[in-house]
Order: sequence, then structure tokens, then C-alpha cells
Amino acid sequence: MARDLVVMKFGGTSVANPDRILNASQKAAKARRRGQEVVVVVSAPGDMTDELIELARRVSSKPQGREMDMLLATGEQMSVALFAMALQAQGISATSLTGGQAGILAEGAHMQAKVSRILRGPIRRSLAAGRVPVVAGFQAANGAGEIVTLGRGGSDLTAVSLAAALGARACEIYTDVEGVFTADPRLVPTARKIRALGYDEMLELAGAGAQVMLPRAVEVAKRFGVVICVKCSFNNEEGTWIMKQDRNAAGAEQAYVSGVALDRHLTQITIAGVPDHPGIAAAIFGELASDSIPVDAIVQSSAKPDKTNDIAITVSRSRSKAALAALHRAARKIGGKKVSADDACAKVSVVGVGIKNASAIPATIFQALAAKKINIQMISTSEIKISCVISERQAQDALRALHDAFGLGKAARPPGRDPS
Amino acid sequence: MARDLVVMKFGGTSVANPDRILNASQKAAKARRRGQEVVVVVSAPGDMTDELIELARRVSSKPQGREMDMLLATGEQMSVALFAMALQAQGISATSLTGGQAGILAEGAHMQAKVSRILRGPIRRSLAAGRVPVVAGFQAANGAGEIVTLGRGGSDLTAVSLAAALGARACEIYTDVEGVFTADPRLVPTARKIRALGYDEMLELAGAGAQVMLPRAVEVAKRFGVVICVKCSFNNEEGTWIMKQDRNAAGAEQAYVSGVALDRHLTQITIAGVPDHPGIAAAIFGELASDSIPVDAIVQSSAKPDKTNDIAITVSRSRSKAALAALHRAARKIGGKKVSADDACAKVSVVGVGIKNASAIPATIFQALAAKKINIQMISTSEIKISCVISERQAQDALRALHDAFGLGKAARPPGRDPS
Repeated sequence: MARDLVVMKFGGTSVANPDRILNASQKAAKARRRGQEVVVVVSAPGDMTDELIELARRVSSKPQGREMDMLLATGEQMSVALFAMALQAQGISATSLTGGQAGILAEGAHMQAKVSRILRGPIRRSLAAGRVPVVAGFQAANGAGEIVTLGRGGSDLTAVSLAAALGARACEIYTDVEGVFTADPRLVPTARKIRALGYDEMLELAGAGAQVMLPRAVEVAKRFGVVICVKCSFNNEEGTWIMKQDRNAAGAEQAYVSGVALDRHLTQITIAGVPDHPGIAAAIFGELASDSIPVDAIVQSSAKPDKTNDIAITVSRSRSKAALAALHRAARKIGGKKVSADDACAKVSVVGVGIKNASAIPATIFQALAAKKINIQMISTSEIKISCVISERQAQDALRALHDAFGLGKAARPPGRDPS
Repeated sequence: MARDLVVMKFGGTSVANPDRILNASQKAAKARRRGQEVVVVVSAPGDMTDELIELARRVSSKPQGREMDMLLATGEQMSVALFAMALQAQGISATSLTGGQAGILAEGAHMQAKVSRILRGPIRRSLAAGRVPVVAGFQAANGAGEIVTLGRGGSDLTAVSLAAALGARACEIYTDVEGVFTADPRLVPTARKIRALGYDEMLELAGAGAQVMLPRAVEVAKRFGVVICVKCSFNNEEGTWIMKQDRNAAGAEQAYVSGVALDRHLTQITIAGVPDHPGIAAAIFGELASDSIPVDAIVQSSAKPDKTNDIAITVSRSRSKAALAALHRAARKIGGKKVSADDACAKVSVVGVGIKNASAIPATIFQALAAKKINIQMISTSEIKISCVISERQAQDALRALHDAFGLGKAARPPGRDPS
């Protein structure tokens, strides 16, 4: 069904107080007056989720997930009511809906439920009546009629899932930044806003530390081909489009770099002197998986003259203690000699289509880092990303050096990348 | 079904912050450990409802009822989640439930819905599983699955309705006062806590300005014979029982005064020179009813020599403008000569079983007021109440004089009035 329907999602900073809610609602009202069908998704106001978590901590050292969900869901419920009132005050017919009322069903554990199904009836009825449905993000109902939440940043997931289910023309994500940048502008002053990029690039940038959108939401958008636009709620600037890129467009065969990203919060753990035989990596991953510790990267050196390897992994620093314990267990099983950890690691990543096969790109990376005397501790690559683990102390220098080396601060975008 | 089930309702001051929630939850935990089945009903924390109303006012000058209900319901939802966590932290199995989840159905306009039905299944299942259901007061679901609220103080109504539906042994109302007093202790320092009183006396005291319990809730309790106990959540003092009084008990034929009450916020409006013929009162009430203005009292003087009457009513001061306009319209229709209003009125009431027929009681009232040189502007009576409208300036003096005149500050209670 071809229809001019847009899903507009407003994050916590965009609905932090009544003035901001009024401001955000004007964007939705404007789209509605242009004749578009509009579905709004909102997060909890500002820091409310953190404040609720603190309240819970004061009554219980270990609150149960079911009750946390009941508590946290009040934030978005407050936002939808106020947002709908703000639309009504501008003469726009609107209806607030909790996640459950909007037909968003989820399953799985409390506080990390997964959207299982969207009943389109409630929102379609609201749209058919000429109203703007204002839907609470982050929350859903489970099979028992309980309130469940989708994990932090789940409002993005609500917005993209609704856009997919309703066949929306686009899903607009309003936030406190102007879009996706070639690097974090707080770290690299010459960073430029990216006009458009593909889902995989966005995923790699997000995974590499660009905190614009929840990766889960980008994955759902990719699967269902939802066109996303990340925009700032405080101005009317063009944002960043995240959508399927047309590889046949002029210039698309050419490799190009979209952006650079930094993850400062890594710990590198090394097992030295591991006997060189098959199954070593499997043993290490097995220990980490049994504690549900996600591994950022794993690198195995080629065997040394004594027929042993050094194996290094990087993990999020928040999980470093658990990971170290798991690797001590693994070392005992596989006969490693020594386990050591470096808590002061960072990872710089260069992201762009085709860069793995464009030999000039790795060369440029290593030259740029060498010129700044930055030692590379680990390298990992994907189709569209090259990451280097370095000392955290040099992280910002490395990011700027790479941003400059690829001319991201000033170069014109390659052709064929505008949204059609 | 005879079962040892108690409904415990905690008001806003009792759950205003995490410490108070912990304190309140200890009372429920104690009852549970004694082996009682416990259903908890909670209000929104402290001033949250007022804060939410202020937020709404800042986004809309005239928020719609549906959205106000969506907004206000977050207060109780927050309370139930935190209260259930607090119980769990003490090792008591508990489940928080929104009004809708608890099976409380209502109909009628938003913000003033009426409980239409209680589906007992959800709470019974929770009790059968050994859990304490913690139910959000004040809110319900309507036939369309929307959130509706029951009007201010609606949490009392939720508690009493649940106690009736579940056949509870008692409904305990925890609040910030120790019970129902012979007079407002802030105005009459010698006021004593009443140990037990009947539903009608409680209704008259509530209607006469004693703000302990919502009259609607007392009416439901009366209809279904729910035994209420009003208690303070900050100590372990015995509270006040509100229950069917045994008229056959010793001394029950004797009239006695339970308490005195004051309503400071009244406006008296008089239409002078109304021709003396039938239908006058009907015309006046008709105009007031068409604007939904509740009338506190109406008094018609006997006809004067010129065959005209003066007719006076009292209304809540918050509705005085609308009432004045209605009475101007009425005066034009019925040929009244002059409409005047006195905004500085108050009403003192003496409440007790049998007082209407005990001539000594009115005599005592009028002597006590006369001794303080307090002029009585209007008198109205019911089976168990005598009210006098006086100048607001003399209100506190009048209240103390009546409290003293009936020896309420020191007299022992009449026999036969203990809860059985």
C-alpha cells in the first residue's frame, strides 16, 4: 500500500520538558498539515529513566525485572500523554497509546524483551479516524498482558518496527545531534555530517562507538528496508539518511570512507604461550559464552618457533573482570602460560563500502598512525571496516589523524549517494 | 467465603518517597507473615498528581480527559512497582498491577469514571499463588481498553470496592492522620480520636468538611457492609473503625454526638423578594442543575407580610461565580427582587446518631453559639446532623464552642460502640 506515512521518533532530550514537547510536537503538526499520515513514537522525558532506576535502588537492592518494567514504562506513558495534549493544543487530533495499547507484542525476559509481533489494528484505526497515534516507545505487552520493556534505546526499535509494519515512507529519528557524522564532533572539530549511508556502514559505525542509533534498530531497518532519517529536533537542518545504497550508481564501484569512529572503553586480554593446535579459539569463546560476555575482537598470532601462540581478545571494559576470569579458566584448559590484561585500550575504526578490497585504504591507515607514532596492538577487519586497537592515551590523536588522512573534513561526497 | 483477607490502602503521603514506601510495605509484610491474605492499594506518591497536572497545563490550556487519565495513571503505576519491589526486598512475594490489570472496570467520562465491575480473576490468581497483589488505586480500564481515572481520592474507592468484591474482613485506610477525630485537631486542640462510628455519621462528617475519606468510598462501604479502619501509616496506634453500628446495644437508644466539623469555603447566595407560590425552589434548583452546581443547603424563609420570601442557598466557594449567574437567571424567571452573595461564610455541623429527635441537642448548639455572640445565618438538619451557616470570621470559635458544649474533648464514649 503506497501511502504517505511517516513515523517520527523523539528521544528523551527532545521531550525533556513541556517546552521541548511543544517544540517537538510542532514538527509532527507540520507534517500532518502537509497532509502526511503521522505516527509519533516517544521516549521517556530526559533523565527520567535514570531517576526511576535510582528510586528502585532505594527500595530494593535487587528489584525484579517485572516490577522494573512496570516502573520504567511510566516514563514513556507520561511522554505520550503530554505529547498528544501538545498536538491537540495545536488543533491536531491525536491519541496517546501505551506500547500494549498500540498492539506491540513482545516475548522474552523482562527488561530485554524482543518484539514478536505488531497488531496493526489499533494504529490503523487511529489513522483512519484522522488522528495522530502517539505511541510509547521502549515498551510492549507480553502474552500474559504484563508490561515488558525492550532494553535501553528500545524506542528506536519501536519506531523502526512500526515503520516496517505500517509500510511507512520513512522513519525519522529526532535526537539532540544533527545526524551521523564522519567522526564524533566533540573529538574531531572538522567532522562533517554524512548525508546518506547504508545500513551496514551505520551498523559498523554504531558498533565502533558512534552512539547515534541502537544497532538492533538498524538491523531491523535493514531487514525490512525501512528508510531512516536521523535529524536534530532543535532545528530544521537536513539530517542523515540511512537506507539501501544503490551500488550501480555512478562511482559506486569505487571504495570510499564514510567515517571514523572511536570506542574508548575496551580492555585487551592476552593469553600467552598457547600450544598451537586446533580448537583453541573455540575453547576461549566457549568460556566467554558461558558467562554471556560479548567479545569485541579476537586475534591469534601465527605460531612462534616454540610452537605456541599468543591469543588476544578485546571486550567492553565493563565486562573486563568477568572476561579475565573466563580467560583464566580457558588458559588452564588449553595450557596457556600467562594471562594478562590491559585496561587502557581504545579502538579506532575506519568505515566505508569496499574498503577491505581497496589496498590503498589499509596503507593510508597504517601510514597515518605511524606518522603520529601510534603503536597498533591489534587489527581486525570486516567487509566495510578496518579497526585498530591502540593505547587509550593516543585515541583522540589517532581519530583525528585518520579523519584527516581520508580528507573527511572537507572532501565532497562521492556522487550517487543522495536519497532518491 | 470466610477468609482472613485484608485490603490495605496507602495514601499519597504514605508512599511519598522510598523510605515511606519501605515503612508502609513493612505493615503489609507483617500482616502477611501473620498468615493473612493481603491486597495492597496505593495512591500516587505525595504531590505527584499535582505536578503532573502542572506539566499538562504547560503544554495545553485545555487538556482532554483521555490524555489526562493517561498522564495521571503513571503516578499510581510508579507506586505499585516500587511497593511490590519493597515487599520483595523483605522476602514477601508480590505482584504489581495497574487498575486495568487488576480487573477493575469502569465506565463514564474520563477523570470521573465510575467503577462498573471488578473481574476477580487476576487478584484471586495472585493470592492463590501466595503473592500480595499491589493494585494501582484511582485508575481502571474502560470498555475500549483505555485508562480511566475515578476522580480525586479515587484510591479509597478502589480499596473499598476491592474489599467488597473479595469479601475482605476489613479495608484498612492508611493515611497521615491517626483516624477520625471529634473535630479537626488543627482547629480544636482538645479533639479526641473516635474509636468507632457508623457509615452515615462518617458521611455527614465528610460532607461537613472532615477530609479523612472520600464520601463516595464510604457510600460503597455502607452498601456492601465493608468494615473500614482508618489508621496512621507512621505509627501503630489503633485507628478509627467505620462500620455498621449495633443499634440494639446498650445505650444505643440514647442520642449522642460523635463529632463536630467545619467547612470554611462556602458562599451564601440570597434571592430576596420572591413571590410566594409553588415551584420557586424547583426553578432555582433547575438553573443550578443545568450548570452542574451542587447545592450545599437551601433555606426558604416563611412568607413575609408582602407575600414574598427570601430564599438562600450555600454553595462551595469554588463554584460561587457560576452559582451567582444561575441565581440571577432564576431570579429573572421567578420574579425575585434582588440577588446578593456573601463570600465569607462557613458551616459548623454537629454529627451524631439520633440527634434530630433529641431536643436537648439543638438547644445546646444554639446556646453555645449565642454565648459566643455568633449569629446563625442558616440552619439545616438531617437525621444525624445539625448544621449552622455562620460568618467565616467566627468559624473556629464556633467549632471550639460546640466541641466543648458536647464534652467531646474529655467524655468517655457511650457503651456498645467497640468493633466486635
